[in-house]
Amino acid sequence: MRDVGWSSALPTVDRDSIVPIYQQIYEELREAILAGKLPEAARLPPERALAERLNVNRSTVVHAYRELAADGLIEQRVGSGSRVARNAGSGQPRGGDVPWWITLPPWRVGSFPQVLGELAAAHHGERISFVQGVPPVEPSPLAELSRSFERVAGDPNYVLSYGDSEGHAPLREAIAARMRARGCSIGPREVLALTGSTQGIALVAQSLAEPGDEIIVEQPTYPGALQIFQIAGLRAIPVAVDDDGMRVDHVEAILRTRRPRFIYTMPSLHNPTGVTMNADRRERLVTLAKRARVPIVEDDPYGELAESPTPPLVAFSPDYVVYLSTFSKTIAPSLRLGWLTAPRTIYERLLLRKQSLDMATSLYVQASVCDYLTRAYDPHVARLREELTERRALARAAIGEHWPKSMRLANGAGGFYLWATAPREMRARVLLDAAERHGATFLFGEAFFAASGGDHNFRLAITPVDRSDLIEGIHRIGKAIAQVSSR
Amino acid sequence: MRDVGWSSALPTVDRDSIVPIYQQIYEELREAILAGKLPEAARLPPERALAERLNVNRSTVVHAYRELAADGLIEQRVGSGSRVARNAGSGQPRGGDVPWWITLPPWRVGSFPQVLGELAAAHHGERISFVQGVPPVEPSPLAELSRSFERVAGDPNYVLSYGDSEGHAPLREAIAARMRARGCSIGPREVLALTGSTQGIALVAQSLAEPGDEIIVEQPTYPGALQIFQIAGLRAIPVAVDDDGMRVDHVEAILRTRRPRFIYTMPSLHNPTGVTMNADRRERLVTLAKRARVPIVEDDPYGELAESPTPPLVAFSPDYVVYLSTFSKTIAPSLRLGWLTAPRTIYERLLLRKQSLDMATSLYVQASVCDYLTRAYDPHVARLREELTERRALARAAIGEHWPKSMRLANGAGGFYLWATAPREMRARVLLDAAERHGATFLFGEAFFAASGGDHNFRLAITPVDRSDLIEGIHRIGKAIAQVSSR
Repeated sequence: MRDVGWSSALPTVDRDSIVPIYQQIYEELREAILAGKLPEAARLPPERALAERLNVNRSTVVHAYRELAADGLIEQRVGSGSRVARNAGSGQPRGGDVPWWITLPPWRVGSFPQVLGELAAAHHGERISFVQGVPPVEPSPLAELSRSFERVAGDPNYVLSYGDSEGHAPLREAIAARMRARGCSIGPREVLALTGSTQGIALVAQSLAEPGDEIIVEQPTYPGALQIFQIAGLRAIPVAVDDDGMRVDHVEAILRTRRPRFIYTMPSLHNPTGVTMNADRRERLVTLAKRARVPIVEDDPYGELAESPTPPLVAFSPDYVVYLSTFSKTIAPSLRLGWLTAPRTIYERLLLRKQSLDMATSLYVQASVCDYLTRAYDPHVARLREELTERRALARAAIGEHWPKSMRLANGAGGFYLWATAPREMRARVLLDAAERHGATFLFGEAFFAASGGDHNFRLAITPVDRSDLIEGIHRIGKAIAQVSSR
Repeated sequence: MRDVGWSSALPTVDRDSIVPIYQQIYEELREAILAGKLPEAARLPPERALAERLNVNRSTVVHAYRELAADGLIEQRVGSGSRVARNAGSGQPRGGDVPWWITLPPWRVGSFPQVLGELAAAHHGERISFVQGVPPVEPSPLAELSRSFERVAGDPNYVLSYGDSEGHAPLREAIAARMRARGCSIGPREVLALTGSTQGIALVAQSLAEPGDEIIVEQPTYPGALQIFQIAGLRAIPVAVDDDGMRVDHVEAILRTRRPRFIYTMPSLHNPTGVTMNADRRERLVTLAKRARVPIVEDDPYGELAESPTPPLVAFSPDYVVYLSTFSKTIAPSLRLGWLTAPRTIYERLLLRKQSLDMATSLYVQASVCDYLTRAYDPHVARLREELTERRALARAAIGEHWPKSMRLANGAGGFYLWATAPREMRARVLLDAAERHGATFLFGEAFFAASGGDHNFRLAITPVDRSDLIEGIHRIGKAIAQVSSR
């Protein structure tokens, strides 16, 4: 066992890089081990020491070390720290005596790699969880939805077939008709059924851009999209969001000097702030996109839930917008059914990529939802809209009662979320720790930021709990705020 | 309107390239137009003339021109041929007066780009279609499956949640238990639920390799996998298959000089040949993979349908095998439910990528199948096995009666397919044309070949039609064979 002269092998950190710091540390150490600079059994500096030396959080180093261990490059033992694994550093990455998985291509995980997993997972023990963006249990779509499933489940034409990879034709027609009613010139040939709109984000990330390309995103934005873009190797240029939506003047400034591959935006009931882009900005954004020849990816999972609906961006210019939406928020997430619309000029490109991801979306689910759409969808969405309005009012009232005035809320127009900003001296992560001790949990703000920031923000989903827990949970967070403030 | 001196702008064709010829033509012309070498309104040579000049099929040129037209680079008018579109050639791909979609990253479609779509689509008009690899309508899983759906459809915990992106825990346990019964050391933590095993092929293509990397595939092999690999930019090194499965000696020779990222194989009831790799070759392949440190991707959609089951490759070495399977062939394709097993060292990498493709597989479907597994799966699979045996016998008998001896069949051990080889003088595409005129259709062999070849092969799926159509369709193909032979 020997120690290594750390000054030479110490990783460096570039704080301006878009690459998360833990990943910089991971990649430099990985390189050093594979190149044999850090020999077998060499001791790595203790996590705390390295964190101090690099002036980063200890958790950042912990994260980097954990990935090295997962790669089989280091061994971690309680009490004796971390050492370079036997046979890890062969100097011959593809040959030598190393296991095959340590020479895999770069992983490109982001700083919050599991955020999509966290958003999906339903288990939070006894805590009141404001994490998941799922529809409320009431009004329930289940009675009518079960009926639709039942109608389709016995038909071999639906259940024992793959179906067209473009999607079930009657469903594509129904979706196109609904979009025309919202002012969009969309026909069924422009509609592609998706296995959830997450798949649509993956499709545009993989089909409209290449690793290393830049894209524009809102800040804050949906963390799942950030995870997808990061894994696809795209570099996100963040643009601020205010009460009227994306700062389109910032987009204009960026487009003067840079050529991003696309602009990702959620203009209606934006996640996480709940704001809706005003009409002037919508028109301006589409004009800018056309002038710069940069397409817009409009993510619209919540648009149909708006009290006063706004025409989507795709209504302004179907040629410059790839539109994504889903039934996860309006009916049920477990359907895994969404759709995109795209101009015919790129439709085939997206279709082939979609086929290569999962062949076709479940025909059984598509046919069932198609049945549900004609019978039960509109009244259900109307009830859901009312429920959201009432929950928002309840939540805001509870916050008024239990939280200090120093906590600010974004001026959201609706949707599933409240976006809070804590005062300067209170970090959201510290508040989260306290809230979890008080029996409530939420998503902290950094996950919504492509660049640094969000340390004082957090998001509450007002939908995944019942009404009494909504109020009780807000009360508990209020206690946590008081506790953290008094420190 | 002016014509251009074609000698300078004529595309060249490299027949040894892995890039399909139509794509070479497309890319060269695209480049010439974007660079302004082919000016606005310039007339392209007629398809037939260019095909003759390059000594390729006319359909190859048609395909290339169609893509140029889809990109908005050329305009095609009946009677007046193809011309470079107005504003197409700006010389400034990302600026100028061009629509945004013509400057997208390379498309990487293969020579049979829509094969996954064709395999999924159910519509073949009045023809008897042997194309789709779907389970037969009888024995039907629908009565019991409907019951399972019904049990789950009313439960908000399943339908109104996303669920863990790793998959539904009881389902992962049930799958692991079934795999242990087949001799594999697999626990639930190694199981990842997939939206069909197609998603698993996409995951390994995107996570274990990078564009430009080489992989080993069987030849022939599942064309859907070839489409996925091609879109992922991977270069497939083909290895022949004989009656005992993949030619492992060829793999050994390749591994002496090259370092492919993985070996993709379907060792049990191989698609399209139906052959099963023998025990010696299985052991040898795993040994080779370990020695060369190249993982195996074992695709096993049909393994459970074998009359005499063989332990999968993953049973030999769970550390060196990513195993893929699906319920599409044993229950229903419309479930879009499959799974993979992977060593824990790379599990997280695959999981994060899976999250970034569709967040999580439908919890409703997973919970329903989990219920079905405990109640109805084993007897259904047993009946399905018998049905396949009987259909194989029927099909072989009909072929013996209606086809000439010069048509050979691969010595498949079971599964959904028959793989036929026509005599030298008969091309499968010509036979397909004739068969379609006689009211039967199938998949021609080239789609199964990563490199050239397969011109005399074709595949019949014996499952997507009823028994009488199975015999009648074979009879019709027999008539087509006679017609083509007599020319």
